[in-house]
Amino acid sequence: MTHTVAVSGASGYAGGEALRLLAGHPDVAVGAITAHSNAGERLGALQPHLHSLADRVLEETTADVLAGHDVVILALPHGASGALAAQIAERSPETLVIDAGADHRLESAADWEAFYGSEHAGTWPYGLPELPGQRERLAGTRRIAVPGCYPTTSILALAPGFAAGLLEPQDVVIVAASGTSGAGKAAKPHLLGSEVMGGMSPYGVGGGHRHTPEIEQGLTQAAGERVQISFTPTLAPMARGILATATARLRPGADPAAVRGAWERAYADERFVHLLPEGLWPATKSVLGSNHVQMQLAVDERAGRVIVTAALDNLTKGTAGGAVQSMNIALGLPEQAGLEQQGVAP
Amino acid sequence: MTHTVAVSGASGYAGGEALRLLAGHPDVAVGAITAHSNAGERLGALQPHLHSLADRVLEETTADVLAGHDVVILALPHGASGALAAQIAERSPETLVIDAGADHRLESAADWEAFYGSEHAGTWPYGLPELPGQRERLAGTRRIAVPGCYPTTSILALAPGFAAGLLEPQDVVIVAASGTSGAGKAAKPHLLGSEVMGGMSPYGVGGGHRHTPEIEQGLTQAAGERVQISFTPTLAPMARGILATATARLRPGADPAAVRGAWERAYADERFVHLLPEGLWPATKSVLGSNHVQMQLAVDERAGRVIVTAALDNLTKGTAGGAVQSMNIALGLPEQAGLEQQGVAP
Amino acid sequence: MTHTVAVSGASGYAGGEALRLLAGHPDVAVGAITAHSNAGERLGALQPHLHSLADRVLEETTADVLAGHDVVILALPHGASGALAAQIAERSPETLVIDAGADHRLESAADWEAFYGSEHAGTWPYGLPELPGQRERLAGTRRIAVPGCYPTTSILALAPGFAAGLLEPQDVVIVAASGTSGAGKAAKPHLLGSEVMGGMSPYGVGGGHRHTPEIEQGLTQAAGERVQISFTPTLAPMARGILATATARLRPGADPAAVRGAWERAYADERFVHLLPEGLWPATKSVLGSNHVQMQLAVDERAGRVIVTAALDNLTKGTAGGAVQSMNIALGLPEQAGLEQQGVAP
Amino acid sequence: MTHTVAVSGASGYAGGEALRLLAGHPDVAVGAITAHSNAGERLGALQPHLHSLADRVLEETTADVLAGHDVVILALPHGASGALAAQIAERSPETLVIDAGADHRLESAADWEAFYGSEHAGTWPYGLPELPGQRERLAGTRRIAVPGCYPTTSILALAPGFAAGLLEPQDVVIVAASGTSGAGKAAKPHLLGSEVMGGMSPYGVGGGHRHTPEIEQGLTQAAGERVQISFTPTLAPMARGILATATARLRPGADPAAVRGAWERAYADERFVHLLPEGLWPATKSVLGSNHVQMQLAVDERAGRVIVTAALDNLTKGTAGGAVQSMNIALGLPEQAGLEQQGVAP
Repeated sequence: MTHTVAVSGASGYAGGEALRLLAGHPDVAVGAITAHSNAGERLGALQPHLHSLADRVLEETTADVLAGHDVVILALPHGASGALAAQIAERSPETLVIDAGADHRLESAADWEAFYGSEHAGTWPYGLPELPGQRERLAGTRRIAVPGCYPTTSILALAPGFAAGLLEPQDVVIVAASGTSGAGKAAKPHLLGSEVMGGMSPYGVGGGHRHTPEIEQGLTQAAGERVQISFTPTLAPMARGILATATARLRPGADPAAVRGAWERAYADERFVHLLPEGLWPATKSVLGSNHVQMQLAVDERAGRVIVTAALDNLTKGTAGGAVQSMNIALGLPEQAGLEQQGVAP
Repeated sequence: MTHTVAVSGASGYAGGEALRLLAGHPDVAVGAITAHSNAGERLGALQPHLHSLADRVLEETTADVLAGHDVVILALPHGASGALAAQIAERSPETLVIDAGADHRLESAADWEAFYGSEHAGTWPYGLPELPGQRERLAGTRRIAVPGCYPTTSILALAPGFAAGLLEPQDVVIVAASGTSGAGKAAKPHLLGSEVMGGMSPYGVGGGHRHTPEIEQGLTQAAGERVQISFTPTLAPMARGILATATARLRPGADPAAVRGAWERAYADERFVHLLPEGLWPATKSVLGSNHVQMQLAVDERAGRVIVTAALDNLTKGTAGGAVQSMNIALGLPEQAGLEQQGVAP
Repeated sequence: MTHTVAVSGASGYAGGEALRLLAGHPDVAVGAITAHSNAGERLGALQPHLHSLADRVLEETTADVLAGHDVVILALPHGASGALAAQIAERSPETLVIDAGADHRLESAADWEAFYGSEHAGTWPYGLPELPGQRERLAGTRRIAVPGCYPTTSILALAPGFAAGLLEPQDVVIVAASGTSGAGKAAKPHLLGSEVMGGMSPYGVGGGHRHTPEIEQGLTQAAGERVQISFTPTLAPMARGILATATARLRPGADPAAVRGAWERAYADERFVHLLPEGLWPATKSVLGSNHVQMQLAVDERAGRVIVTAALDNLTKGTAGGAVQSMNIALGLPEQAGLEQQGVAP
Repeated sequence: MTHTVAVSGASGYAGGEALRLLAGHPDVAVGAITAHSNAGERLGALQPHLHSLADRVLEETTADVLAGHDVVILALPHGASGALAAQIAERSPETLVIDAGADHRLESAADWEAFYGSEHAGTWPYGLPELPGQRERLAGTRRIAVPGCYPTTSILALAPGFAAGLLEPQDVVIVAASGTSGAGKAAKPHLLGSEVMGGMSPYGVGGGHRHTPEIEQGLTQAAGERVQISFTPTLAPMARGILATATARLRPGADPAAVRGAWERAYADERFVHLLPEGLWPATKSVLGSNHVQMQLAVDERAGRVIVTAALDNLTKGTAGGAVQSMNIALGLPEQAGLEQQGVAP
C-alpha cells in the first residue's frame, strides 16, 4: 500500500532533503509540495537536484492543501507548525503530522519560552527511535517531533553511558561542528561562500543555543537524573555534516571495558548507528546523504573522562532521514524503507 | 533473477563507487570484492561509507577469484585489464566484463600507443548509451569499455550539434574542471587537501591529456567527419564533479532555434541527460552522487559559436554509474536499475 | 612624503582589500573610510581581519568627506562613481581618483550602454601597467580606471601574442573560473556557502558577461586589429582567485619557440607577472593575497592553437592590488610599494 | 643592521611559511635554505608562492651549511633537531637557534618519552611571549623552542583565567579544529583533498595527542598548580587555521565581570592577541596568513563554566610567525617586525 506524503517548506534545505528521500521511498507517493514565497514555481528551479520531481509546481502552504494526505511533513520556521498542525488535524484527524521544526520537541514549557520566546505548542512523541522505549512510543502515533540535528548527534553520543549509570551528570561538555546547511537557505552575509569557505568560527557560545535544553532533556531521560551540559556549536566549511565531540566525567569504577560495553550493547541491533571498530574514527563524509551515524569512543584515564565522537548528516539522519525513519515506524513500514542509501564518499 | 557482480580495484574511488551503486541495485548481488595491496582487509576500513558491506573482506585480484560471476567490473590502473580480461574469458566465457579503465576505449591503436605508451589491448563496445545506435551495440554484449569521465561529459555536450551538421569540425575548444577524485586515491603531494583546497590549477595543457583522442573519437563518430579539439583540464577544489565548457563554431545558417532544437531532440527521451530550461545553468552539486547530467547551451551570435556547459559526477555517470547503466542494458535490465538516486544537494 | 588615501565602499570586498594593502603601504596614511548603509559602524565589526584599523569608524560616502585627500579609491557599485568623481574633482582637483568599478573602463559608449544599460561616464586611463605604453599614460595621471578582474587575467594572458602578430583575431576562447568574492558581499541565495562549496557552475554564458567588451578592447589594442572573443565565466568553490584558460588560433608560421619568446619578452622585466618555467603550472593558491600573476603556455600543434593559463587573486592584482600598483605609478612611488607580500600558501 | 637567517626544512609547510615571513622582514636577509630529499632543487618548484626567492637553490641540511648565520630556524621532523643544534652550537656559538619542532618544548623528560618515545633533548626557552615573564626569558636568548600550534591556541585561551585563580584545574576540556597543513606535506591517503574536502573527523582522541602534555605544562605554569585537560583535535576542511574551544569550570565566586576582566588585563597591551568586543566571534579566516589571534569568551552560568574560543593561523602565529616574533625579541628588534600583515580575508 502506498502512502501519500505532502511536504511543506519544500523550497528549503530540510524540505528538499525530505523530497529527495521520499522520491526513492518504495512505499510512498509524493503528494502536495508546498512553500510560502515560492508557491507557483517549478520545483526544478528551486531544487535543481530533484530531477524526478522537477516539473512539479509548488502550492501554497495551507491546511486545505495539506489535509487529506496520509502523512504531512512540516519543514517550517519554528513557531509556524503549531497552528497549522491543529488545522490539519481538524480536517483529517488520521493524517500523520511530522514536525521537522522545533515546536513540539521540548517537554518543558519554561525551557521553550526561555529559549524560543514564544508560547509553547505542546509536546509530541520524540522521533529518535534509538532511545530506549522510543520505538514503542512511535508505533502508530499520529504526531512526531523530529529531533534537532545537534540533539540527535549529542544524545546518541552520550545516552548509552548515562543509561548505564557510568557518567557523572555534571561536567558534560559537547563541542560540535556543523555544515552550513544547518543554518538554512535564507541569504545572510555571514553565510556567504566567501565568508565560510576555508575557515571556522563558533556561534551561540555560552549555553545560549536553542538545542541546549533539548540535549539536556534527552540525556536527563537516559540518566534518570538531571544532566547539565556545556554546549558549543561551530560552523565548519562544508555544506553538510555534524561532528560532535562529547565528553563526560566517568563515575568511580567505570572501567574502559564497561564503558565500551555499554555503547556496544546500546547499538548492537541498530541499523543506522555504528560504533566503529577500534582504530577507526567517524567522518562526516562517510555518512553524507545517508541516514547512518558513525561513532567512536575513547576513555582518557588521565583525565577520567570518556570522549565520544559522532558524525552524521545534519539534513539526513539529523532532520529529514530521521523524520522518514520515524514515519516508517509510525506507519508500520520497515524502518529502513527509503533510507538504504550508503554515504556518498569521497 | 539476481546477477552476481564482482568488483576488482575495490579499494580505489571507482571501485568504491561501483560498490556503493551495486549495494542498492535491486537485481544484483555483490560477489567477490578484490584488491591488490589491500587484499585481506575489511572493506569497512578502506571504504568506511559502505556500511552494508563493511564486514566483507577483500580478496586478491585474480582471474580465479573473478571468474564465475555473471559480471566483473574492472576498476584497475590502465594497462592492467587486457590480460586479466583474457584470463577471465577463458575460465567463464559468459561473464560480462566491464572495463572501467581506459584499455579498451580507443579504436585507433596508434592513438593508444601515442597517448598511453603501451600495446593496444583492443576495442570493446563503448558504454555511452546516449550516442545514436549505441544502445543496440550494448544490448547483450559481453564486453563494455566504460568511457572516461571527461569524454562522457564532452561528447554528450557536443555530439548533438555534430550529429545535426551544425558545427564546424575545427576550432572546438573544451575546458573542463574536475574534482580531485578523478585523480584517484594514490597519495601524491599535489593532491593533498592543503594543496587543493581553495585554489584551482590546470594540468595536461596543450593537447597532451589522454582523454583528448577519446573525445575526438566520439565527436568524429557523431559528425561523420574528422573533429579536432583543444582540450584543457583543470583541477577544482571539490572531491567530485566535472563541469565542462565546450564551444564550437557554428556552420553558416545554424540559427539559435535550430541549435537548441538539435540538443532537445537528442536528449528528449534520455532519462539521465537533462537539457535545462533556459535561464538555469548546470551545477555539479546538483548531480552529486547521481547518474544525471545537467546541460545548458547558449548561442553567442557575436562570436558565431555555441557554448555548451555540462555537469556530471565523475565517479557516478562519469565512471561507475555509466558502467552500471551499460551493464543494465547488456543484461536486459531496466536501464535505470540501481541508478534512481537523485543528486545530493546542497 | 606620506600620501593620504580615502577608501569608499569600505564594507565590501574590494574596499576591504584596498584597506588591507594600504595599511601595509609605507608611503600612505589611510584617511577617511566610508560606506553607505554601514556608515557609523566600527570597521572591526565589518572587516574583522583588519586589526590595525579595527577601531576606525566608517563615515558616509560623500564628496565632502572624500575631497581633500591625496588619493580617493572608489569601490562602489557600477554607475555610482561618475557623479561622485565629478563632485570630488570640483572640491579638490589635485586628488587622484581611482575608480575600482567599471564606469570608466570602456572607450566605446555603445559597448557601455549595451552591456551596462546606463549612460557612459567617460573613459579614464586604464590601470594595467603591463600593457605596452601604459606606464607612461599612468604617470602623473589624476584619474585611473581599475581593470576588471577577468579582463586583467585575460588581457595579460593573450596580449603578448597579439602584440607580436602571432594570433588570429578570431576563434579566441576564454574560459575562466573565479572565486566567489568576485560576486561581492551582497547576500544572494546562490552565493551561500551551502550552495557553492563542493561544486562548480557557469554563469553569463554566451557572450553576455559585462567583462566581454573590456577584454576585447584590451586585446584589440594589443593586436592593432579587431579581436573577437568567446568568454565563459564559471564560479569555483573558493573565496578568492581567478584561473583563466585562454586559447587562440596560431597564425601560419607561428612556431612554438616564437610563441614562447613573445611572452618571455613581454614579461621579462615585469615584477608581478611570472611566466613560469616549463613544467610548472599556475595555481591560484600560489598568488593568494598577493599582486602576482602566474602564467604558463603550451602550443598544441595538433589543434594549431596556443593555450595560455593564468592565475591571480581577483581581489588583489584583479582589483585593489592593481589599483595600488597604478596609484604608485601615478604618484611617482616605487611600483611595488605596499605590494611586496608573497602569496599565502598552502 | 641586517641579520642573516637560515631556514632548514624549507620544502615543508613550516619552512615555507618562515621564508614567506622572512622575505618581508625589514631587518633580515634570508641566508641558506636547506632541505633533505629536495636539496639541489629550485625553491620555485617546491614553494611556488615565494616569488622573490624562486630562483634560490636548496642546500643540504647540515651543520656546516647552517652554522655562521645569525639565526637558524629548524623546521624539521621531531627528533631531528637536538643533534643538529649541538653541531651548530659547536661551530658558531653565537647563532640563535630556533627549533620549530617539538624537541625542546617539554620540561618533563618523562612526558617527552611517554608521548614521543625517544630520548629527551632538553628544554629551551618557550617562545610564547604573551605568557607572564616570558618576554624577559626570551630577550637575548640563543635558544628558542617554538610552541606547538594547538598549545599556542589553547594556552593563550585559558592562561589568563588560571593566572587569576578563577578556574578549577580539573574538568578542563579543549576541542580544537585544525586545517590540514598542520599535518604537514608528506603525502598520506587520509590527507588527500578528496578525503578531507567537505568533511570533518577527529583524531588522537582520548588524551593521546602529543600536544596534550605541552598544553598542560603551559596551563600548570600559569595556574601555579597542576592542571589536567581533556584535549581532542579534529581535522577541518581548510588548509590553514585552528579554532579552539576551551572550557573550564569556574571557581566559586568567579563572576562574569571578573572573568572578562582577567582576559582583558592579560591582553590589553598585546599586539597580536585580540579579545574581541562582545558580540563578535573569532574566525580563522580573519587571521589567515597573519600573526594575530582572535579570542572571545562567554560565561555559561547554568553550567558554571567559562568557554573561550580562539582562532589563529597554525602556520603563522602557530608556528613560523611565533618563531619570528620570539626571534625579534631575542635579537632586540621590534616585536612586530616582519609580522605586520593583516589577515587575508575573505
